[in-house]
Amino acid sequence: MAQPISRFPVPRLEELPEDVRARILSVQDKVGFVPNVFLVLAHRPEEFRAFFAYHDALMEKPGALSKAEREMIVVATSNANHCHYCVIAHGAILRIRAKDALIADQVAINYRKADLAPRHKAMLDFAMKVALDAHAIDEHDFAALQGHGFDAEAAWDIGAIAAFFALSNRMANMADMRPNEEFYIMGRLPAPEARKV
Amino acid sequence: MAQPISRFPVPRLEELPEDVRARILSVQDKVGFVPNVFLVLAHRPEEFRAFFAYHDALMEKPGALSKAEREMIVVATSNANHCHYCVIAHGAILRIRAKDALIADQVAINYRKADLAPRHKAMLDFAMKVALDAHAIDEHDFAALQGHGFDAEAAWDIGAIAAFFALSNRMANMADMRPNEEFYIMGRLPAPEARKV
Amino acid sequence: MAQPISRFPVPRLEELPEDVRARILSVQDKVGFVPNVFLVLAHRPEEFRAFFAYHDALMEKPGALSKAEREMIVVATSNANHCHYCVIAHGAILRIRAKDALIADQVAINYRKADLAPRHKAMLDFAMKVALDAHAIDEHDFAALQGHGFDAEAAWDIGAIAAFFALSNRMANMADMRPNEEFYIMGRLPAPEARKV
Amino acid sequence: MAQPISRFPVPRLEELPEDVRARILSVQDKVGFVPNVFLVLAHRPEEFRAFFAYHDALMEKPGALSKAEREMIVVATSNANHCHYCVIAHGAILRIRAKDALIADQVAINYRKADLAPRHKAMLDFAMKVALDAHAIDEHDFAALQGHGFDAEAAWDIGAIAAFFALSNRMANMADMRPNEEFYIMGRLPAPEARKV
Amino acid sequence: MAQPISRFPVPRLEELPEDVRARILSVQDKVGFVPNVFLVLAHRPEEFRAFFAYHDALMEKPGALSKAEREMIVVATSNANHCHYCVIAHGAILRIRAKDALIADQVAINYRKADLAPRHKAMLDFAMKVALDAHAIDEHDFAALQGHGFDAEAAWDIGAIAAFFALSNRMANMADMRPNEEFYIMGRLPAPEARKV
Amino acid sequence: MAQPISRFPVPRLEELPEDVRARILSVQDKVGFVPNVFLVLAHRPEEFRAFFAYHDALMEKPGALSKAEREMIVVATSNANHCHYCVIAHGAILRIRAKDALIADQVAINYRKADLAPRHKAMLDFAMKVALDAHAIDEHDFAALQGHGFDAEAAWDIGAIAAFFALSNRMANMADMRPNEEFYIMGRLPAPEARKV
Repeated sequence: MAQPISRFPVPRLEELPEDVRARILSVQDKVGFVPNVFLVLAHRPEEFRAFFAYHDALMEKPGALSKAEREMIVVATSNANHCHYCVIAHGAILRIRAKDALIADQVAINYRKADLAPRHKAMLDFAMKVALDAHAIDEHDFAALQGHGFDAEAAWDIGAIAAFFALSNRMANMADMRPNEEFYIMGRLPAPEARKV
Repeated sequence: MAQPISRFPVPRLEELPEDVRARILSVQDKVGFVPNVFLVLAHRPEEFRAFFAYHDALMEKPGALSKAEREMIVVATSNANHCHYCVIAHGAILRIRAKDALIADQVAINYRKADLAPRHKAMLDFAMKVALDAHAIDEHDFAALQGHGFDAEAAWDIGAIAAFFALSNRMANMADMRPNEEFYIMGRLPAPEARKV
Repeated sequence: MAQPISRFPVPRLEELPEDVRARILSVQDKVGFVPNVFLVLAHRPEEFRAFFAYHDALMEKPGALSKAEREMIVVATSNANHCHYCVIAHGAILRIRAKDALIADQVAINYRKADLAPRHKAMLDFAMKVALDAHAIDEHDFAALQGHGFDAEAAWDIGAIAAFFALSNRMANMADMRPNEEFYIMGRLPAPEARKV
Repeated sequence: MAQPISRFPVPRLEELPEDVRARILSVQDKVGFVPNVFLVLAHRPEEFRAFFAYHDALMEKPGALSKAEREMIVVATSNANHCHYCVIAHGAILRIRAKDALIADQVAINYRKADLAPRHKAMLDFAMKVALDAHAIDEHDFAALQGHGFDAEAAWDIGAIAAFFALSNRMANMADMRPNEEFYIMGRLPAPEARKV
Repeated sequence: MAQPISRFPVPRLEELPEDVRARILSVQDKVGFVPNVFLVLAHRPEEFRAFFAYHDALMEKPGALSKAEREMIVVATSNANHCHYCVIAHGAILRIRAKDALIADQVAINYRKADLAPRHKAMLDFAMKVALDAHAIDEHDFAALQGHGFDAEAAWDIGAIAAFFALSNRMANMADMRPNEEFYIMGRLPAPEARKV
Repeated sequence: MAQPISRFPVPRLEELPEDVRARILSVQDKVGFVPNVFLVLAHRPEEFRAFFAYHDALMEKPGALSKAEREMIVVATSNANHCHYCVIAHGAILRIRAKDALIADQVAINYRKADLAPRHKAMLDFAMKVALDAHAIDEHDFAALQGHGFDAEAAWDIGAIAAFFALSNRMANMADMRPNEEFYIMGRLPAPEARKV
């Protein structure tokens, strides 16, 4: 009953422009497999380039938020959007970056009940408002963040990540993008066990 | 940052009425630990008895639905209700009963995109309508089930499970009920690995 | 144009297990007729037993809430769920327990505009949040109750009744459960008139 | 705990313009009391005149719909808008016009489960869409009505009544308009009993 | 692809009752064309009379709100209701009455982000609550208005305009009422340009 | 009362990286002014580059959709998200690309009632589902598009534009991005008049 990884045609690596193929191979080297989002979006190389440039600008550069914090935003907003791919793939990344096997499921299902500091709940309150009611964002929302030490640049980061995954969740849902099976277990085992898997 | 298992007082085993304690010990024997729902609800022994009697009538007795099918209903509707405890605990049971490490996360996040037969998507369409819009259930919903081989008794089972977890999800969310850590990993590893854990 | 009392088969009394039949006859003795919920749910005796055990634990035992307060919770949340049976049957019980011919219709339609003390509006604010948004319940909700003299045990009672009728409303809507005609007028007349009816 | 009949000042009859007072006295003659909506809206005589002219054009003139059908539309849409005054007052009128003691409560709570002919459910489907999602009304909605014998003029009537009570419900909710106690029981008793009350 | 101005029959002027025709001709004299709402609603002369009497009582008489303020309420709530006719026609009137070419589009799309004084945002907060959630209006809403200098009479005006356009928007959407092309540009050009158009 | 163009700092041109400044100057050359989105997003040059690369890949390249069709998608989904900047700026572009002074306001407020061919309504049905309910997109939605001649590649285009503006609308709402005044009138006048402005 396993579905294909996309409702749209998935290009073979050898058909792809050099830079797109190089990016994919470099991810494979680093992660050990090619996350399906790279193959699915490679159907449109120009959009692929912009998507990952945007992703990297928000998720990989130095900034006000730790990498684990960024992934919390992705996981919480992606479950609000019922995005299969993003919750599972970024749930794995969150577990690894937070070195916490439990956090991703908690944040996905109901961050208000998760084992999070009040500061992180405030961060996710803001992210969820951008995801679901951005039109009503106002100075009170920025003040609430400020009260937890998130300045204007941090607020931009939080909002921009929620906004980018608003796009990403919609693309994945439109394409029926399927997560790789590797993500489901990744980061769930203590390190020595993980090595054996 | 780990939260207590309940916002309400949690009784010690020795304080409990004999039958409640016996039920808890028997679960511990079978599962290897006491799922927190037993301890949290034991705060009110009479409600405890009724809750588990109802649960067992729906989830354990022979009937039109397989045990894995019943757990699919729990997992899908519980994520719609953002119920931390139920998604994680019943996600584990679903993985075990379906002998499928991937199915629980898929069903929780978006059953429409999951690796499910059309029959199971129809079952979950009905369950979600009972969970979210029961007032609008009508003969078309029963006919859709019928078209996939679910007769009236099966429809009752599907609807009653969705209705029971409407109660259960609300109790867990009101009480900030916390799932046991054991559930997160349960059923995610192939059997031999599982033994090593 | 009158509908049957259930979309599912309704057992005859003589077909029922002894304890279920006894319970039904005892209600008939007390109330003067058999409320349809007993007949409709008797289709599944085991679920019947658990349902009424749960109901009695919440609605009949001594506790922090008066019986009229408990019925207010049922009536307000059941109209939010558009549950025909529960609003009409429990509306009757509320009128009788509160000795107030007007209160049930007010609480059903819009408790915020009803002739209620602020304490009862706060009680229903909490109940409605459990009914409709339990995932967002947090310490502010408990503090608001506390401010009106409802302690943690009373909060459990309020939430548990709202949660139980989340189940009950969904079962009634799934089964197209029809209220007995007796309920519509019950408690609407001053006592001497009532005797004549 | 009984509330005033309006959050706004309520004029005394003798302060009112002659035509407004005359209208009120004539209603009193006919009904036996003055329904509060007349007193509450008399706060603004010009708006009062327009409101009741509009009301009469829709509810009293000959037309495609029976008077009972018109009241069904009022009752169903007014409960969707949680309008205390309109459900209770027009519920009474519906019981009388339909000569049916049960219909108003059924239609208010969930018209889909009420003892109604399919034709009346179709009528209320259209009315509810005008009340709640008028922007999405299209030719399919008119065709569905046509299939039950409601032509374009009848559709206008149904929609216009739903639209007028969208106004009326909002005014009543803004003003905390309180229904007269007489309405609660009106039409609930068989005719001979009613005479005794 | 241009649609007719109404889904219902539109009467010719000479068919209309004298007073309705006179009202239409007088508008034509003043505005330079006949706004389609007059022609569409003339299909039902009695409702036409009540509609415009109500409209004039709220929109034309002296009162607590300036004429531009009243039009802001119309434009904001009408876009919330996706009412094509009302946003475009009243957008034009708002531009003219406020002598501001930009304000109507801003208020329609998101008044929270518009170039408005806090007082006007508070006015529109109240209007939107009447339009969308009137059942939950309470003393806090009136207090918020009071804090911006809107007394109880002004609150009635704001709420009554929002309530009247709840009706108007639903009629326009039901009838597929089409705005005149003249409205789109009206008030968008500085006065001397406007004269040339 | 005019607001700043962003809640965040807006860089001066001379502070910007060469490529970002060049892009901005080239837009200024072509359009006659700098649309504020370029200045607001230049606060983060890396995100700026990715945003406009993505924008151009979807909005400027040859493809299955005409440029006017693409702008229809932007305008309809941006009003659903209450995005001030995008409705006003892309409304202008839509008027110009469609050579139609009326279409943008119609599509923004309620595309179902707009002067559009059924094919364009089907295109916008799909776009709105991606914008608002992407998790429920399924084969029926693609089949509906197919029935109007939109193949899978066209579906990707429609969905990807709706997804990209899900991001863009959220950024604009978070930043309180203000549209340039020039956009309001652009494309509203017949060409010769336009020249005079």
